[in-house]
Amino acid sequence: MYRMHCETSRHYDVIVTDGLLDPSNPLLRDTIGIRRALVVTDPTVDELYGSALRAALGDHAVLVLDLDEQTKTITEVLEVCAAAQRERLGRRDLLIAVGGGIVCDVVSVAASLIRRGIPYVCVPTTLVGAVDAGIGLKGGVNFGPTKNYLGTFTPPSRVLVDPAFLRTLPAAELRAGFAEVLKMAIVCDADLFDLVVDAGPALVASGFSSPGAAEVLDRSITLMLDELSANSYEDLGYERLVDFGHTFSPILEEVSGYTLRHGEAVALDMAISSAIAVIHGLLPRSEYDRVLEAMHGLGLPSMSESCSVANLARGLVSAAAHRDNDLNLVVPQRIGRGTFIKSLDDVSLADLAQALDLLEDASRRAAAC
Amino acid sequence: MYRMHCETSRHYDVIVTDGLLDPSNPLLRDTIGIRRALVVTDPTVDELYGSALRAALGDHAVLVLDLDEQTKTITEVLEVCAAAQRERLGRRDLLIAVGGGIVCDVVSVAASLIRRGIPYVCVPTTLVGAVDAGIGLKGGVNFGPTKNYLGTFTPPSRVLVDPAFLRTLPAAELRAGFAEVLKMAIVCDADLFDLVVDAGPALVASGFSSPGAAEVLDRSITLMLDELSANSYEDLGYERLVDFGHTFSPILEEVSGYTLRHGEAVALDMAISSAIAVIHGLLPRSEYDRVLEAMHGLGLPSMSESCSVANLARGLVSAAAHRDNDLNLVVPQRIGRGTFIKSLDDVSLADLAQALDLLEDASRRAAAC
Repeated sequence: MYRMHCETSRHYDVIVTDGLLDPSNPLLRDTIGIRRALVVTDPTVDELYGSALRAALGDHAVLVLDLDEQTKTITEVLEVCAAAQRERLGRRDLLIAVGGGIVCDVVSVAASLIRRGIPYVCVPTTLVGAVDAGIGLKGGVNFGPTKNYLGTFTPPSRVLVDPAFLRTLPAAELRAGFAEVLKMAIVCDADLFDLVVDAGPALVASGFSSPGAAEVLDRSITLMLDELSANSYEDLGYERLVDFGHTFSPILEEVSGYTLRHGEAVALDMAISSAIAVIHGLLPRSEYDRVLEAMHGLGLPSMSESCSVANLARGLVSAAAHRDNDLNLVVPQRIGRGTFIKSLDDVSLADLAQALDLLEDASRRAAAC
Repeated sequence: MYRMHCETSRHYDVIVTDGLLDPSNPLLRDTIGIRRALVVTDPTVDELYGSALRAALGDHAVLVLDLDEQTKTITEVLEVCAAAQRERLGRRDLLIAVGGGIVCDVVSVAASLIRRGIPYVCVPTTLVGAVDAGIGLKGGVNFGPTKNYLGTFTPPSRVLVDPAFLRTLPAAELRAGFAEVLKMAIVCDADLFDLVVDAGPALVASGFSSPGAAEVLDRSITLMLDELSANSYEDLGYERLVDFGHTFSPILEEVSGYTLRHGEAVALDMAISSAIAVIHGLLPRSEYDRVLEAMHGLGLPSMSESCSVANLARGLVSAAAHRDNDLNLVVPQRIGRGTFIKSLDDVSLADLAQALDLLEDASRRAAAC
């Protein structure tokens, strides 16, 4: 019998910079260095920033892929791989994702497969990307009926966040991004929560250019990286506060045929999880009201027709399967502090029905205001 | 600017056991434990061992995939993923590869993608698998024109080697396996070389059941794991002795349309690399003769019609691209000791032509014996 042991250690930087595509900003050039690079982006980013991007890149290739949650599949990953092969990228060369979470996801999976792993850089252009999907190690694509069934944990070699990209985002996209910011705020950071309540609605309306923009971004990224550093590969247990809003949301996205934005599904999940916390006596009703008010203030939904007891039950079972048969439903205890409902046995169908009743009630009251 | 750092550490065991499928051997059951398992195998193994395997597994699922070097593609990987999804494998459940290097390769890539990585176990049934492809971390599939263009470095959770499987291998398959054994012997272990020269031909003829079988297996596995432990992810430099025989061989396999076995291509590559070493004055002619005699004694080829200067040049350029523009061609200095020809500039087209002349000559002499 032989035993081998290997140690690897990885780290990466998230760099926040203003005007990444300005000719005077050397960061993108310095990041690429003498390597070949293949940039992957989507038609929206290409329309808005394509010429500035190409000017900043010099003669590196750009691949524009029409990506959305429905086409986030292995087929698109393989398109990136084929382009890398055409461009003769070597093992030290670089993929660069410029886009939202979906572009970052697809590029991350492609980079992890090409020549058994080549470096990649993420340049998130959405708020979700900048505070969540674009700054972590998780790449994933949908497969058959399951969201993110295929993927890898592959650290980017660097993440470049430029707040300028956020200024061209539609309000709906900013709202969806704020769902991820709220997620961290509700279970980790009461100060960020207050900041979002105060500054969030104006930031959505102003294209992320009103006061508080830099602070929201910095604080959210720092929180996320702290959480990621503690359990990067999710192999040190499934008690992850960043999973708040991510138990029911995959099923809700699936049953909506991905017409629900990821951020909207996260918002619905946070509302449901908070209502369950109230029912279980874990969260005071007054704090629950603050959660829902914050969501409504940002224009995020707390109820949708996808929210049936049957769908929520499917979400619980599927999340437990994904978390090694422990449920570990993240729920707030008060603003800024989260806890876990450990077992599938601890949430009954009656709890789910009662949670939906609470939320119906809140929606009705909000509509009446 | 934020920086994060994460440390991961992985190890795995290679366990050599006799009679893995015997009802009295608890190792396979103990390896699976209470997890769900999906076994992937090929039609040949299924025909020979299918019923014993199913009896040993109980009610775990078996997927039989018709795999060869031409169908070793992402399509077959996705078939494994779809089967895992059908069988509802969770993040802690298990894929088990029972077969040669190709089955292990495909399962390794599938396991690295499913739910961002689930555990897998390799049970190599060929000599190549037992001493090389089945005991390392490298999974890969062919993509477009390039062998193993897509893949990952994913450590198995365990490798189970049973010499009993080797007893049903055809001589050609055993010969190809001995090419990988010779590879390690020539550049790392003079005692193993002597053992292969003495015992190898009988082991090929006897279905790996003549004297020396256990020693060849143990020694080869130990050598391979030592080499792997030193640079598991190939990110600590490209001076890897285990790359001996793996510079020209990918191109030779490609241009043969994969009619050349991997082991045969490795043998050709070792002959070419040794001839280049002679031409460069790195390897005494007498030692070169011993290398070729050992190969011919095992029935391995040292010349083929794929071996043209143009193809060899392509091999050099492609290997250098894969090794960060350093060639690092592994060549023997004497039996049991290897060194590297570092740069692409150090091997001329005239060297390649001269090496082929040397090999033509050796083939002619061998044929005349």
